Amino acid sequence: MHVLSSEQFGDEELNTFFDQADEFRGQLSENFLRRRLASKHIGSKLCNLFYEPSTRTRLSFGFAADNLGVRVQGTENAREFSSAAKGETLEDTIRVINEYGVDIIVLRHHETGAAAHAASVSEAAIINAGDGHGEHPTQAILDAYTIQRSQGRLDNLHIVMGGDLKHGRTARSLAKLLSRYQHNRMTFVTVPELQMSDDIKVHLDENGIEHRDTSDMYDAFKDADVVYWTRLQKERLDKPEAVPSSGFVIDATALEVLPSSTTIMHPLPRVEEIDPSIDTDSRAQYFQQAGNGLYIRMALIDKILRS
Amino acid sequence: MHVLSSEQFGDEELNTFFDQADEFRGQLSENFLRRRLASKHIGSKLCNLFYEPSTRTRLSFGFAADNLGVRVQGTENAREFSSAAKGETLEDTIRVINEYGVDIIVLRHHETGAAAHAASVSEAAIINAGDGHGEHPTQAILDAYTIQRSQGRLDNLHIVMGGDLKHGRTARSLAKLLSRYQHNRMTFVTVPELQMSDDIKVHLDENGIEHRDTSDMYDAFKDADVVYWTRLQKERLDKPEAVPSSGFVIDATALEVLPSSTTIMHPLPRVEEIDPSIDTDSRAQYFQQAGNGLYIRMALIDKILRS
Amino acid sequence: MHVLSSEQFGDEELNTFFDQADEFRGQLSENFLRRRLASKHIGSKLCNLFYEPSTRTRLSFGFAADNLGVRVQGTENAREFSSAAKGETLEDTIRVINEYGVDIIVLRHHETGAAAHAASVSEAAIINAGDGHGEHPTQAILDAYTIQRSQGRLDNLHIVMGGDLKHGRTARSLAKLLSRYQHNRMTFVTVPELQMSDDIKVHLDENGIEHRDTSDMYDAFKDADVVYWTRLQKERLDKPEAVPSSGFVIDATALEVLPSSTTIMHPLPRVEEIDPSIDTDSRAQYFQQAGNGLYIRMALIDKILRS
Repeated sequence: MHVLSSEQFGDEELNTFFDQADEFRGQLSENFLRRRLASKHIGSKLCNLFYEPSTRTRLSFGFAADNLGVRVQGTENAREFSSAAKGETLEDTIRVINEYGVDIIVLRHHETGAAAHAASVSEAAIINAGDGHGEHPTQAILDAYTIQRSQGRLDNLHIVMGGDLKHGRTARSLAKLLSRYQHNRMTFVTVPELQMSDDIKVHLDENGIEHRDTSDMYDAFKDADVVYWTRLQKERLDKPEAVPSSGFVIDATALEVLPSSTTIMHPLPRVEEIDPSIDTDSRAQYFQQAGNGLYIRMALIDKILRS
Repeated sequence: MHVLSSEQFGDEELNTFFDQADEFRGQLSENFLRRRLASKHIGSKLCNLFYEPSTRTRLSFGFAADNLGVRVQGTENAREFSSAAKGETLEDTIRVINEYGVDIIVLRHHETGAAAHAASVSEAAIINAGDGHGEHPTQAILDAYTIQRSQGRLDNLHIVMGGDLKHGRTARSLAKLLSRYQHNRMTFVTVPELQMSDDIKVHLDENGIEHRDTSDMYDAFKDADVVYWTRLQKERLDKPEAVPSSGFVIDATALEVLPSSTTIMHPLPRVEEIDPSIDTDSRAQYFQQAGNGLYIRMALIDKILRS
Repeated sequence: MHVLSSEQFGDEELNTFFDQADEFRGQLSENFLRRRLASKHIGSKLCNLFYEPSTRTRLSFGFAADNLGVRVQGTENAREFSSAAKGETLEDTIRVINEYGVDIIVLRHHETGAAAHAASVSEAAIINAGDGHGEHPTQAILDAYTIQRSQGRLDNLHIVMGGDLKHGRTARSLAKLLSRYQHNRMTFVTVPELQMSDDIKVHLDENGIEHRDTSDMYDAFKDADVVYWTRLQKERLDKPEAVPSSGFVIDATALEVLPSSTTIMHPLPRVEEIDPSIDTDSRAQYFQQAGNGLYIRMALIDKILRS
């Protein structure tokens, strides 16, 4: 089973991942079970093949594998170092790594579609860990898992997304994923130049998902169930003065507007768009969100090795 | 036992490696045996000390060690990163790593003779994973192993080598290794500027190995048992127009000339000298060849840890 | 328990580390015990988070963890590669890695005080592996351990330190650590520009530790119990001709002056300040010193995981 897109999993399958992730979470918190888990998949092997650096994703897959007894080898920056520099195709590299008997190749690549190319020649399961402007399915799944854990559901939600929605892969993927569930409603908070692109909007329309654009952050926050925030790079804007006075920064003022049950998320790293002073607020879930990736990745690795 | 050169092993010893490699291959394909193997050498340690990047060699040693329960630490590019930059000698670095109680140091270095320097101060076994223009013994052994597996013998063969034979370390090493066996015959397909160098030719003459140079690839292929192909870098040639119309590229036309039992090999990465359209032909063995490295490296690591 | 400074440990605690280090040393030398040790802390995880390269320190922590069954993931050069490049604070990175359920984060950072910042937000134990001009506590502890092992005591010693004492972190830390013990006496061999700085000298005075500066290396060596040597970078000096004819190089001539029971130490890498011809002399303990780091790091990791 290759993991190329979050779209490939049905609702039932996602729920199974969520349940498995919860189960692993519980087992890791018990010393005895944690030790037992660490020999579950002994003899299995995972290769972290990163053509561009992404330290946190690489570490997260590495520790997820470690937790299950899977051995990990890899490269931090294959693009610069490996035979790719000598002109080898990705397909040839994948074929060679297959010959080393690995079970899973976690691939991070700078070109859109690289994961599908890799999968076409690979017996080992390819897990797409981000390919150019393409997919990063484990991020989308862990985002959904975070919402499920904090809101108890993936439907009937008002989701407010903000920042650079045009280029942000994570917001795009999550919007698509949440469009499967009934009665969700989305508000996109940004400036006109960085709006969610039309392909996503058409997709939302086709799925009957209500959505609107605004630059009024506070207004959107008033009844938000989920806030999914990303960085808005002002240096990319022609008219930076078009950014409202809020600067799209979540701080103590924003917290006053947000309901007490809102989940505040961010794919991280954050820079200035979330003020560290709100980190201790129980609505701030971005660090837990990153941690949820560990359990989701364990669930995926486990499923692949059992199939 | 240091592994510095393929020359250090007698025919008997090579056969023992080949048998052990076959045995490990079988064990890895059985889930139960694979798990048991993964704790065989628990407590042993291997250090991948790479002064220049060579991702596939490093991964191959890493997974070979993992398969046997050996723990691996290492560096992808010690030349740039480590205390070498501060002027430390290789000998000092090796002494320090010995103090960390490692059993095996896999050394890749940019200077010819580095492996011997390292071995002179090391209690841990040094495995030479390529030192400058010097040796890369596990590559030579896995090449021989690939021929043994596909042709059933290492003697009485017509071996056709092509590409840049002057600079190619792998073709040189394999020619020397095969000169030990009786009734082998070699044809070197290249342009005059990139011919196999005289030291190797003298060595072949001394061992009674018939050899000739040609630029007629198709003629050489007619009765080839083994084709060992490497990249010919046209940009290095004074007169690129001296390259024949075949361009020394193995493609469908070349397959028509080659006997049905030929083994086509390449140390990889390949660029244009083998057309991907022939990858599915059963004669194309270059990916299996890379994979054979895993089993050969396991056999070597195992022998070192048992001695 | 965070490990931020060698100062945080009392004499009793240091002795416990030394005893534990000795015990691990013995266990690693017995094949059976070594295997058992390698599953002692299965299920535990260590992250080598290196913002600047330090290959030997990273490998030493890695193998120390391996010896105890702790799984290791990490990064060789996070400063260049990770989300730090995108402007993420160290604190955020540490929080995310905490979410991956690691038990220990070994942090190497270019900024003084980074380890304390990391510890302030970390549930996982932070081990400071060097932060800018700040501390490198495991180096100071292994230096003390080396003296204890070779001299049998940490008091009543004449310690001669030489080289660049102004910038050298290790000499400064060791001087402070040894000032706790009675009747130690220190001689600093260097040129005026590179003398031990006043804060350390004041500290020694307050602790009643006799100390003096000299540029006469041979005179200082006459009754030295411990020689702690570091590199003096002549290119940093305004008047390189002020360096005495000895050049502050320990060679055969220096050995003639040194008592037969002296311990010669160096934090390594060395360049020219210790002549390799003396490496085989039993007083030369710099490689063993590096190796002692393995056992000290094992003792620290073990203590953290048991607490």
